[in-house]
Amino acid sequence: MATIRDVAKRAGVSVATVSRVLNETGYVHADTKAAVKKAIEELNYKPNYVARSLYQKSSRLIGLILPDITNPFFPELARAVEDVAHQYGYTVVLCNSDGDLEKEKHYLDVLTQNHADGLIVTTNRQNNLNYINLNIPVVALDRPLHESIPEVCADHYGGGKMATEYLIRRGCNFIAHVRGPGQLSPADERCRGFVNAAEKAGVPFYIVESQFDITISEQKVSELLDTYPRIDGIFAGNDLIAVAAVKVALKRGISIPEELQVIGFDGIPLSACFYPSITTIVQPIYEMGQCATKLLIQLITNQGVTAKKHCLPVKLVERETTKRMG
Amino acid sequence: MATIRDVAKRAGVSVATVSRVLNETGYVHADTKAAVKKAIEELNYKPNYVARSLYQKSSRLIGLILPDITNPFFPELARAVEDVAHQYGYTVVLCNSDGDLEKEKHYLDVLTQNHADGLIVTTNRQNNLNYINLNIPVVALDRPLHESIPEVCADHYGGGKMATEYLIRRGCNFIAHVRGPGQLSPADERCRGFVNAAEKAGVPFYIVESQFDITISEQKVSELLDTYPRIDGIFAGNDLIAVAAVKVALKRGISIPEELQVIGFDGIPLSACFYPSITTIVQPIYEMGQCATKLLIQLITNQGVTAKKHCLPVKLVERETTKRMG
Repeated sequence: MATIRDVAKRAGVSVATVSRVLNETGYVHADTKAAVKKAIEELNYKPNYVARSLYQKSSRLIGLILPDITNPFFPELARAVEDVAHQYGYTVVLCNSDGDLEKEKHYLDVLTQNHADGLIVTTNRQNNLNYINLNIPVVALDRPLHESIPEVCADHYGGGKMATEYLIRRGCNFIAHVRGPGQLSPADERCRGFVNAAEKAGVPFYIVESQFDITISEQKVSELLDTYPRIDGIFAGNDLIAVAAVKVALKRGISIPEELQVIGFDGIPLSACFYPSITTIVQPIYEMGQCATKLLIQLITNQGVTAKKHCLPVKLVERETTKRMG
Repeated sequence: MATIRDVAKRAGVSVATVSRVLNETGYVHADTKAAVKKAIEELNYKPNYVARSLYQKSSRLIGLILPDITNPFFPELARAVEDVAHQYGYTVVLCNSDGDLEKEKHYLDVLTQNHADGLIVTTNRQNNLNYINLNIPVVALDRPLHESIPEVCADHYGGGKMATEYLIRRGCNFIAHVRGPGQLSPADERCRGFVNAAEKAGVPFYIVESQFDITISEQKVSELLDTYPRIDGIFAGNDLIAVAAVKVALKRGISIPEELQVIGFDGIPLSACFYPSITTIVQPIYEMGQCATKLLIQLITNQGVTAKKHCLPVKLVERETTKRMG
């Protein structure tokens, strides 16, 4: 394998000059730069990243901390982060935290010790001290981290409102929101949107708290329909809850969408391939991952970053669990 | 942050001695070792991994190359790899190759330049030269790579046989196998198991090739049922194909499992949460990831590794798309 010395020799310059070209530091004459670049190409020279990382405190590694890659929301997000990172010559270290602060702390240690250049973090814990005083750039994804940390998320409040107004426009007279866990910002925002739209329309409503989990939500929806059999519209806190609602209804012989309309949130692949396919508020998951990664790379390379908070719009995708308008 | 010099000073020894303790090389008296360890603890000293990686050519990074994390088979596999890696103090770099040789090559360059300690690879390309002459350990996961490279996979042939025998025992008289892409070893093995079981039982059968994709498979299943409406059992090449088969049947008013029985392969979460839930051959996905990672760490740490090929057993999980035995 060619070394930096081979490159210097071939280009007829010093090792320090090659280093200046590689690191884009200091002045190098255009002709000299061209000669060095030609020598690098001819020798197929690849800089030793570990040595460079020691010197520059940069490894071209980006840490991606998320709760659990097996949660169907995250693979697409991770994929987008990796695609953009790859495009800009960065590599992604995947860290499943399970929302456990100790595990997050451990990964932060590993990442900083390996001179990671930046972090993209999805965590349930706001104002988490682990992240606030790091000396590398951090971008919060999907959930806010701290007011000092830039953030990319979707419009959960607007989506909740949109879903609820849609159910009401399609004739629902008594609607329920089976919401995600309390204290989780996206779940709170969606719920706020629901309440706002229902109150504004003067439609009676009921809220039950569940988890983003099919089995637990089947239980919650069963109890809900036992208590309030008149419910004719459910805004599910996410697509997994929507799947649970549809399954419970079908098992009871309640026809969907004729007797009960259901709308989800997220737009994970399951919502489209379920039968009946589920009407849902689609988050731009891939675009969110892209946006966060581009933002992080701008921060790493000291480009001016303007907006602190990037709130991406959601859209309603009509499928088979709600009524079509004549 | 404490440096190795601070540790040496506090313990009253030389930097070289601290280094010997850290790297577990050379002789250090037990008392001295204890003093160094005490100093490390008191100063909360953390070795500079990047510097150590340059010296030891070890970064405690493991590369995980897989086709696409958004394919629902892979998140659980990635999760298992990361869980075991984390347990042994390694960190996982995630690489989506899209089965593209150029992309795989690029990631191999990045990983070797960062002194990754080993690789776990899921690739469709057997005998891929990229991997054969690497000077770090490699383990093939899910799909064979080369006879010289240790491999962890599931018993696809046995599973294919098991699924087919099950359909026949449950009264199917004309069975079809909607298989995965040709030249993909797991798809070939499952198909071989199907043919073997069908021929042995003397049951007429038909094979159609599809992709591991719901939309494409819906088309293939539609064509199949148009041509052979008498088919009463489908062994789907994986769970996505099974979902497609069930959707097509239900849309045509064919009752499942009464008129058509369907069995899948893989055991991805979708198979359990679909309605009706799908009978399938479950691969031990998490265990496969665990096994591959433990094997890789044994190779990295030069522990004796015996078996070259680890073929994990599959099991049949009965759900709602096949008939219950009286």
